[in-house]
Amino acid sequence: MHRLITPTALLLLIFGSSAQFTQAQQTPAIDKRYTDEIKKLADQPAVKKAFQTFIDLEPQTKQDLITLTETPSPPFKEQVRAKKFAAMMKEAGADSVWIDEVSNVLAKRKGRSGKKTIIVEAHLDTVFPEGTDVKVKQKGDTLYAPGVGDDTRGLTAVLAVLKGMEKAGIETDADVLFVGAVGEEGLGDLRGVKHLLRKDGGIKPDSYIAVDGDGISSITHRGLGSHRYRVTFKGPGGHSYGSFGIVNPHSALGKAIYYFTTDADKVTRQGVKTTYSVSVIGGGTSVNAIPYESWAEIDMRSESPEKLNEVDQILQNSVQRALKDENSLKRQGPDLTVEVKKIGDRPSGRTDATAAIVQRAMAVSKYLNAEPQLEVASTNANAPISLGIPTVTIGSGGIGGGEHALNEWWLNDKGYLGMQRILLLLLAEAGIDKSGGTAAK
Amino acid sequence: MHRLITPTALLLLIFGSSAQFTQAQQTPAIDKRYTDEIKKLADQPAVKKAFQTFIDLEPQTKQDLITLTETPSPPFKEQVRAKKFAAMMKEAGADSVWIDEVSNVLAKRKGRSGKKTIIVEAHLDTVFPEGTDVKVKQKGDTLYAPGVGDDTRGLTAVLAVLKGMEKAGIETDADVLFVGAVGEEGLGDLRGVKHLLRKDGGIKPDSYIAVDGDGISSITHRGLGSHRYRVTFKGPGGHSYGSFGIVNPHSALGKAIYYFTTDADKVTRQGVKTTYSVSVIGGGTSVNAIPYESWAEIDMRSESPEKLNEVDQILQNSVQRALKDENSLKRQGPDLTVEVKKIGDRPSGRTDATAAIVQRAMAVSKYLNAEPQLEVASTNANAPISLGIPTVTIGSGGIGGGEHALNEWWLNDKGYLGMQRILLLLLAEAGIDKSGGTAAK
Repeated sequence: MHRLITPTALLLLIFGSSAQFTQAQQTPAIDKRYTDEIKKLADQPAVKKAFQTFIDLEPQTKQDLITLTETPSPPFKEQVRAKKFAAMMKEAGADSVWIDEVSNVLAKRKGRSGKKTIIVEAHLDTVFPEGTDVKVKQKGDTLYAPGVGDDTRGLTAVLAVLKGMEKAGIETDADVLFVGAVGEEGLGDLRGVKHLLRKDGGIKPDSYIAVDGDGISSITHRGLGSHRYRVTFKGPGGHSYGSFGIVNPHSALGKAIYYFTTDADKVTRQGVKTTYSVSVIGGGTSVNAIPYESWAEIDMRSESPEKLNEVDQILQNSVQRALKDENSLKRQGPDLTVEVKKIGDRPSGRTDATAAIVQRAMAVSKYLNAEPQLEVASTNANAPISLGIPTVTIGSGGIGGGEHALNEWWLNDKGYLGMQRILLLLLAEAGIDKSGGTAAK
Repeated sequence: MHRLITPTALLLLIFGSSAQFTQAQQTPAIDKRYTDEIKKLADQPAVKKAFQTFIDLEPQTKQDLITLTETPSPPFKEQVRAKKFAAMMKEAGADSVWIDEVSNVLAKRKGRSGKKTIIVEAHLDTVFPEGTDVKVKQKGDTLYAPGVGDDTRGLTAVLAVLKGMEKAGIETDADVLFVGAVGEEGLGDLRGVKHLLRKDGGIKPDSYIAVDGDGISSITHRGLGSHRYRVTFKGPGGHSYGSFGIVNPHSALGKAIYYFTTDADKVTRQGVKTTYSVSVIGGGTSVNAIPYESWAEIDMRSESPEKLNEVDQILQNSVQRALKDENSLKRQGPDLTVEVKKIGDRPSGRTDATAAIVQRAMAVSKYLNAEPQLEVASTNANAPISLGIPTVTIGSGGIGGGEHALNEWWLNDKGYLGMQRILLLLLAEAGIDKSGGTAAK
């Protein structure tokens, strides 16, 4: 995930990656009952034992991070890392571990009643293409390697949480599903989590905790949705003089861009931040030829599904209007055709800041002496949020930087707090045994 | 040169080559004095002797064609062929032969008075890139090789005309400059002939005969002019969400295309055929990035300089208007800039059908029992025509096809008629000795 546009954002562009982007928000008040609940939970002896386990396990967690980081996991090629992660989860004590059709890793830890299911997930994929040197280099205490922070650290934090729960013998009421998801980045288009939560045969969790990013402050409760399209106008093509009068796909694309940007500009000047960008264009073979094809890739984003759909509709209308207009100008030959292909679809939406999962996440940060920060971003959380599942994305502790860049790094600055945070939020959501149970189910 | 859009036109597009394109015209009447003049000229014993020489020389002319064709002459790399052609012209008996700064070959044959200068020219360059297999293959009587017809046959016809004049001892009143010109094709943009006729220090011929294409019918007296531009909008670029509100070069290009094609459509619906084409576009690196650059290559053509300039002006205005409009929409960051680079400039114009050189060319075709055909095309003739120099482009005899394609061919079907035609037109323009002089000086 990405929280700020830093110098690394430029590299992010170069690597052509991911819709991830985050924006800080003002933090609302935390209801006292959640503050109390978290404190009570943290005082449980079993939880304290787990907390200590995270510290004791640090050398092993570091080794796991190196092992997984050095197992390449390029977009659409997460299988090798998936197998390794599955083996680690099995060894850590999960009741059952399996790899699904799209290579998501699922590790189930049964709860007492199993009436509910809580998902804790980190993503397996990195933005880095096959062949990238992923050897981890250590300078001082800092680990450098592509993908070391985003989201390999997330995977190891999830793994360590399971280990801690096992060592401390913590029993939850709900089933917990620990997940390593494929396809979070870029053109992966959230395909792992989409498959996981698919309508037909997918899992229907009661709440969803995505682990992505560093630190223990950020709480992403709003999903920045995006639609991406590739629009392609096609005509017969021909000699620029001899065939003059036939339809010209570039003329149509120019018109579509004009109509789209003119109208989209107007509707994005008020309300929730909503953006659009004609990002890549192409087509044509020679200056003396009317092209047979003209295409553009277009990106639009909003945390409001309504706004996103409004801009989307403007694009659809603009393309059809341009098609009609260019065809009406033709002096000979066949009509233009157009193909509008959706190449990206990240749903948007929000889990309300007053929802239990958000309030609990804030209370956990506070309990760990960090300042909770509510954010909007494009992460795996987008998918469950859009389905109405209480969801947050939280960081996994430590300090990181250079996400999506070759010089990515992660520093274990009290990284165990990340696991403590995940555990507290998970236990609040999953409920523990009656004696020390959670307050607000 | 190209006279029709045949299947080879498709290959022409693939090879990204040349503005050449021709269109047939209705042929006006030939003034009787030119018919008489040409007949009288052809009856001269020395001319008859030269005519026979062309026939006698055919084996040598064929060998010259193979030698020159197999000497590659890619765009901007005509030097090797230029040296070979210069040596041939020297050996054929030119008074002086030299290669100028841009590699044009000039072979001067002095006239009696030398008060006038007539240029007879064929072009040295082919459309074929370095490394193309230019080995000549003979099937039956047909020679196959890239460039064998366009315009290597033209070079050998010019060479043979010089040889014939030498053998027959023909004396002209005007100086004759036999030229092998570079840069006729595509991006060569007529640079050879433009240099030859440059204002500052160039040659100022009294008439100009370009030899290009096959047969003995075609007479190109109208130059199809073209302007070509590469328009590039530039902005800072940035993340499609994080940097939203900065200028978007693609939005500007879209607007420019919309303004240009809308206005250009209107002015090209009446009058002399005038065309425009947005041919190639590009820019952008990733769907999630506002691009830092957006560019388009645009072609416009007309045989009317006024119409060409009108469409040109519409483009300039559209680009500036789009720049202004896009800048006015920006919400943050620096302004867009734009660069409009002229990448092609072939002047247009015509030598009137009643001009002596056109009338003579028609009379020559008639005399040789061919039907003269007046045409518009983009050839080296464009340059002298635009300077007001009486000019035609005529073919060099025989039958050819597949110009600009790898399967180009030329067949020596009474090819000697091509030389007879060039000679008659040249002598009519240059004047021969008083005893059998030309009628219409």
